[in-house]
Amino acid sequence: MLSVIEIAAQRNDLVILSGGLGPTPDDLTKQTVAKYLGVDLVEDATAMAKIEAYFQTTGKKMTANNRLQALYLDGGQALANETGMAVGCYYENAQGADFLLLPGPPSELKPMMAKVAKPLLAHRVKGAQVLTSRVLRFFGIGESLLAEKLADLLKNSQNPTAATYAKDNEVTLRLTASGQSDQEVTKLLDQAEIDIQTQVGQYFYGYGDDNSLAQVVVQKLKAAGLKITAAESLTGGQFQAAITSVPGSSEVFDGGFVTYAQAAKASLLDIPSQVLDQHGVVSQQCAQWMAQQAKKKAGADIGLSFTGVAGPDSLEEQPAGTVWIGLAFKGQAPVAKKYHFPKQRAFVQERCVYTGLWLVLQALLATENS
Amino acid sequence: MLSVIEIAAQRNDLVILSGGLGPTPDDLTKQTVAKYLGVDLVEDATAMAKIEAYFQTTGKKMTANNRLQALYLDGGQALANETGMAVGCYYENAQGADFLLLPGPPSELKPMMAKVAKPLLAHRVKGAQVLTSRVLRFFGIGESLLAEKLADLLKNSQNPTAATYAKDNEVTLRLTASGQSDQEVTKLLDQAEIDIQTQVGQYFYGYGDDNSLAQVVVQKLKAAGLKITAAESLTGGQFQAAITSVPGSSEVFDGGFVTYAQAAKASLLDIPSQVLDQHGVVSQQCAQWMAQQAKKKAGADIGLSFTGVAGPDSLEEQPAGTVWIGLAFKGQAPVAKKYHFPKQRAFVQERCVYTGLWLVLQALLATENS
Repeated sequence: MLSVIEIAAQRNDLVILSGGLGPTPDDLTKQTVAKYLGVDLVEDATAMAKIEAYFQTTGKKMTANNRLQALYLDGGQALANETGMAVGCYYENAQGADFLLLPGPPSELKPMMAKVAKPLLAHRVKGAQVLTSRVLRFFGIGESLLAEKLADLLKNSQNPTAATYAKDNEVTLRLTASGQSDQEVTKLLDQAEIDIQTQVGQYFYGYGDDNSLAQVVVQKLKAAGLKITAAESLTGGQFQAAITSVPGSSEVFDGGFVTYAQAAKASLLDIPSQVLDQHGVVSQQCAQWMAQQAKKKAGADIGLSFTGVAGPDSLEEQPAGTVWIGLAFKGQAPVAKKYHFPKQRAFVQERCVYTGLWLVLQALLATENS
Repeated sequence: MLSVIEIAAQRNDLVILSGGLGPTPDDLTKQTVAKYLGVDLVEDATAMAKIEAYFQTTGKKMTANNRLQALYLDGGQALANETGMAVGCYYENAQGADFLLLPGPPSELKPMMAKVAKPLLAHRVKGAQVLTSRVLRFFGIGESLLAEKLADLLKNSQNPTAATYAKDNEVTLRLTASGQSDQEVTKLLDQAEIDIQTQVGQYFYGYGDDNSLAQVVVQKLKAAGLKITAAESLTGGQFQAAITSVPGSSEVFDGGFVTYAQAAKASLLDIPSQVLDQHGVVSQQCAQWMAQQAKKKAGADIGLSFTGVAGPDSLEEQPAGTVWIGLAFKGQAPVAKKYHFPKQRAFVQERCVYTGLWLVLQALLATENS
């Protein structure tokens, strides 16, 4: 590590290290940077108090090595860890490269970078007072197709710069513009976004790093004063878990059903056995009944249903990845759509959840626009 | 990237690169390594057929840049991507460092490394015919306490080597031993494990990288021929989602309830309103009733319940993180335990799921041993 740090410091004005601030013997980042700089590690009283309070509250035993998490580079600045215990550090070095030490776990790294470290780094962007990113989020389009549709922007645009990032079920596009004022930067971002929305606006659902399709749906439901429920077979509770992962979802969700076995579809939702026997559980009819009965029994305005084959085995002679998603929307007759998601179990389940959220969003948008 | 590759190749016998094999303009790993080596990129027919088949099956539009994912280094060996589309590559280089190119997404990286790449690298471990890792999984102990209890092993053991890895709610310990035979290596691992189990066996729940507390619980339930259900308030379906994330969970789970609002606890589970009014929903009584009624209504052998305050706001004057978990186990009277998980919403919900699984596991182990 010392050799890596030496090389990095020789090459650069700023070295950012993430991870290795924790309490175990292989957490050596601070110690190694301290050795390179020839400075001591000192204790941050605020971080130490937080560590002690945590162990006091939980009644867990605090071990000596937990104290290591409160140490930072002498002469540097301790960076508060809002969501964890290991303190970060920003060290400005008159003799060479500066160092920024951040925690490894994303849940700690992200807030520390965004809220604490980023303002400290702002002066480094030469010739610009303002540097702003705008993140656009898309569902239902792959990264490669998005990249092809926006090829000119991605390859040639210098200000804003644009970069795509693909997760399993969504793609985000980050635009970053720099300029002399907020107004100038906002104008650059707005201009770029007009082109983007023209090209791929049909897949766009929201802005921001800390956003999700579930959050957007919950916000829309709140605004419309509507309650949602679900009957989940192959998703086993994941759709409702996505809704309730959003703080404040109690305004739009009272409860719902996980009906994994055929018997549970009959007993918990009162779906007539002959419907299930005649059409099977992987069927349009079953999906429609599930959505409608869940809506009725939970006293909700919107009922979603998921039934199909998560895999790896097939079911009712239908291959893994075959899915029906049902939607009972307010007073409308329930509808159901068939999908085929040809991937492994976890992907099929997650894709169902995203697709269900997307169907609700489209139905809500249609209502808004009508 | 070219400069980084040059440095890495000068220093090492093998350079492993992960990521950048995809279809977008910023995926440049193969192109850059090809430039460094002075070789062309060639198309792998198998990978190309898979890409074409995917777009045919899904009916999505295949773009030209998707073909890039089938390219590998001429003179190297294409590595099949079982769970994705970008082909990997192993390139043995008589003039210098060898290269191993792997995809970035963990769901593609892990299987390719384990099944395709690792056998190709085995000959590089000098002086040993066998190199084997054993992963032990723990719940309910922090990484720092585990590291302190196993300090001697972690610091001093050379064969096997030992390393801890912490996730939000569990810790794994990887032991890696080398030797001349499977027998020798197994003996080394067994000897090390005896000490570990003596120290921290009470937190141990299973083996392996591809394992989870949910998998272990589902296996135990299958072996015991028992069915499980749940009534979830603050976890909103996450416990049932954890159970049904396990392939074959239909043998042990028929269905269950998400009862987020007080009204849903009364209407879906028939819990008397006076119980809820008198004790509140964040109470031992509510947790016990939820577990018992879920078990009864789903016709299961085991009922779990989760009620409490996920946060960020408090509820019934109880702070965020206050949780009751109920367990109705076979013919036994329902019990409930109180917890306080002082972290943010997502952590509280996930911790509830782990703790519920752990309670079920302990109850099953107690039955086995009685």
